[in-house]
Amino acid sequence: MSKAHLGLIGLGVMGENLVLNAERNGFSIVVYNRTYSKTEDFLNGRGAGKKIEGAKTLGEFVDKLEKPRRILMMIKAGTAIDKVIEQISSFLEEGDLLIDGGNSEFRDTERRVSELESKNFGYLGMGVSGGSKGALEGPSMMPGGTRDSYKAIENIVTKMAAQVEDGPCVKYIGPGGSGHFVKTVHNGIEYGIEQILAEAYDLMKRVAGINCEEIADVMRIWNNTEELSSYLVEITEVCLRTKDTYDKSDLVEKIVDKAGQKGTGLWTVVSALELGASVPTIYASLNGRVMSSMKDQRILAESILQGPSITYSDMGSKDKGMPLLKDAVILACFASYAQGMDLLSIASKEYNYQLDLPSIAQIWKGGCIIRAKLLKRIQNAYENNSNISNLLTDPWFAEQVNARLPGLARIVSLAAANGVPVPCLSSTLDYINSYRTSRLPQNLVQAMRDCFGSHTYQRVDMDGSFHTDWL
Amino acid sequence: MSKAHLGLIGLGVMGENLVLNAERNGFSIVVYNRTYSKTEDFLNGRGAGKKIEGAKTLGEFVDKLEKPRRILMMIKAGTAIDKVIEQISSFLEEGDLLIDGGNSEFRDTERRVSELESKNFGYLGMGVSGGSKGALEGPSMMPGGTRDSYKAIENIVTKMAAQVEDGPCVKYIGPGGSGHFVKTVHNGIEYGIEQILAEAYDLMKRVAGINCEEIADVMRIWNNTEELSSYLVEITEVCLRTKDTYDKSDLVEKIVDKAGQKGTGLWTVVSALELGASVPTIYASLNGRVMSSMKDQRILAESILQGPSITYSDMGSKDKGMPLLKDAVILACFASYAQGMDLLSIASKEYNYQLDLPSIAQIWKGGCIIRAKLLKRIQNAYENNSNISNLLTDPWFAEQVNARLPGLARIVSLAAANGVPVPCLSSTLDYINSYRTSRLPQNLVQAMRDCFGSHTYQRVDMDGSFHTDWL
Repeated sequence: MSKAHLGLIGLGVMGENLVLNAERNGFSIVVYNRTYSKTEDFLNGRGAGKKIEGAKTLGEFVDKLEKPRRILMMIKAGTAIDKVIEQISSFLEEGDLLIDGGNSEFRDTERRVSELESKNFGYLGMGVSGGSKGALEGPSMMPGGTRDSYKAIENIVTKMAAQVEDGPCVKYIGPGGSGHFVKTVHNGIEYGIEQILAEAYDLMKRVAGINCEEIADVMRIWNNTEELSSYLVEITEVCLRTKDTYDKSDLVEKIVDKAGQKGTGLWTVVSALELGASVPTIYASLNGRVMSSMKDQRILAESILQGPSITYSDMGSKDKGMPLLKDAVILACFASYAQGMDLLSIASKEYNYQLDLPSIAQIWKGGCIIRAKLLKRIQNAYENNSNISNLLTDPWFAEQVNARLPGLARIVSLAAANGVPVPCLSSTLDYINSYRTSRLPQNLVQAMRDCFGSHTYQRVDMDGSFHTDWL
Repeated sequence: MSKAHLGLIGLGVMGENLVLNAERNGFSIVVYNRTYSKTEDFLNGRGAGKKIEGAKTLGEFVDKLEKPRRILMMIKAGTAIDKVIEQISSFLEEGDLLIDGGNSEFRDTERRVSELESKNFGYLGMGVSGGSKGALEGPSMMPGGTRDSYKAIENIVTKMAAQVEDGPCVKYIGPGGSGHFVKTVHNGIEYGIEQILAEAYDLMKRVAGINCEEIADVMRIWNNTEELSSYLVEITEVCLRTKDTYDKSDLVEKIVDKAGQKGTGLWTVVSALELGASVPTIYASLNGRVMSSMKDQRILAESILQGPSITYSDMGSKDKGMPLLKDAVILACFASYAQGMDLLSIASKEYNYQLDLPSIAQIWKGGCIIRAKLLKRIQNAYENNSNISNLLTDPWFAEQVNARLPGLARIVSLAAANGVPVPCLSSTLDYINSYRTSRLPQNLVQAMRDCFGSHTYQRVDMDGSFHTDWL
């Protein structure tokens, strides 16, 4: 009996779909799940009649794999990973490779790579994006670890991945936890874009007073532009058009307005703070979720804290995709990508990841949740100038910022006047306005800090550290 | 020879001043510094002719203290603390007490309290605020650890602390790392207020076009209001009036506009994210510092990214303290305190700190950097309703919010129109507008997440988790 090409542990929806994807691409697979009944269900259901075998024990599982073994774990991030590593290690031989395809914290992956490599096993931390559909049809994958470990799975993952004009949406990312770090930042950008679209929907609904179908029409117009054509805009249109099966009304209005935040979104902002990277649009998207979760408090506060009543405000014709609002949304999406890429660039130096930013933009062009036409422009920007300090200073992006900044400012003003929160849009405006201001007012902060704490300050006209006895 | 009441390790400016403070209040002190020459300098200088002795070695230092010993460490947070603990432990006896008065990460303190207590030593993590001047004249102190450990220093610290109408600005905070946690949040609030005042200065300078003396006049007016009367507004006026000794021009304009962020500010935001607390005004103040540090990039970007030219905009008469701007600054300061108090309240439950919020407001009323008349109102709010969900829903604060929200909205609009970044002001506006909105647009985010990732959603009209095959 011939041995299988690939092993998979963890038959959640992502795991199942990746197995079916690999099998469709010509690979034989052995699957293992802690609860064997789940394995049986899969083998008799979606996995039936395919080159997929099951295993009842980890020993049997490992035994059914060709050597060196390649084992993809699709299990919950955290201690569950360490447990499986511990359990399976005794069955593995030198040169065997474990791959963590979940959303692990990149520092955990860093540790596991070094622990496992020291035992002569291979270990990859591989971010996988695309949701359940992407896993089945072709995800975007971000593998980090040693280059040799990646070589061992290259023939499989390049076939499984989404394919775009310039190749498959998987490339070797870098050492240690870099693959999971890049996936973390991907998710941070994703948080940003989701919140931006939610803010746009809120403005169209509450200020422009148009309905879900009309908002969906605007999303369709946006999805036909180079700047906004993307998976998330596309599915936003879909979500807005979907009707409730019970009463045929707009389903989205039946959904509770609470979203959670943890894991990757949180790690993006924490890493940014630690590294001194500026990610205010992404923070605002996380905090938008935090505010959303305080539902009971918000209901109470609405009866206590008063805002302006909504007045008609012009965001541009809806038949033209509300050009002013579109400007604001475009710049906020740009800012999410720019902040994410900036964070990657800073982390690459700090952690010695040697990330190739054009490659990362390339593998995000297909398969993943933040795929967008814009990524071609991002790829170009970093190909044209690998030392560019910020995406927004690339000539194409700068021209866009200069053309659209008045629209963004108008929308932020209009939201303020109407009492509608737009944390991602206003954070983006402040981000751009701060970034393009050579003289900011933090000189006053430094004066205060020297005044109360003798922290000293630097002068614009002399070198050195200075302290003043303030009056 | 009689033994000293208190030992102090670390003769930085804070350490020296705390020693002089304790001595002035009738306590005898032994001091130790790693470099003995520093001890000698102090004993021959500011410490001369006082009940202050030096010690060359840790053994001698410990030996000179009455039992049970009370030893205050004023040294750099991090591994230096662990090192000193290790070195001094062999000289200590059961019941002796170590106090860390630096800005340690509260989790480190948590660990040290439990390690030291298990060896029958006492350990307190005590936040000390007030800068060098506060340390000398009377700081605000936030001691965390066991109640017994606090009892052992109560007679000393209650005399050293700043005194306000209802007692000294020190009280037992709670177990473990709670003292350092409260100090961390104090610093987060401080970051917020500093940045808010910097944004106000920037608007007055660049939009209203008034000079430092005129801005100082506005600060003086603000400092005479109940809402803004505070140490930071007071020293802002001082900073703005101080002249350069070289050319007698405004000194603040000679200071480099770069401020750093790390330690306590960062920990405040990270803790908030971990606990699901909303601190956008505080985050914006940190990120304002991050943006400020990118000086070279900002100089470059100014030549690439264009904004509007500054146009005259009315922020209210400067002789009346620019009422619209004052509204904005008041609400942003309120938001900083509200977010900090909310974080304390959530952390108290999560970490089982059993924090007494009125007490914390009370000990911040004097001595510390964020002392302000407003803290009396905050103390009242939590005394009147210990379960209040957010400070801004207290009747007095709610009335203020309702009266001043239009002013804040106007200022955010005006800043947007003029291209001036106001991250703390606009974050505050979004915070209040989000908080007082019972229906936010995160229902769309949940729809998207279910669409691409089968994450399921909740409905407003039925219990349970739902999944839809979106179109």
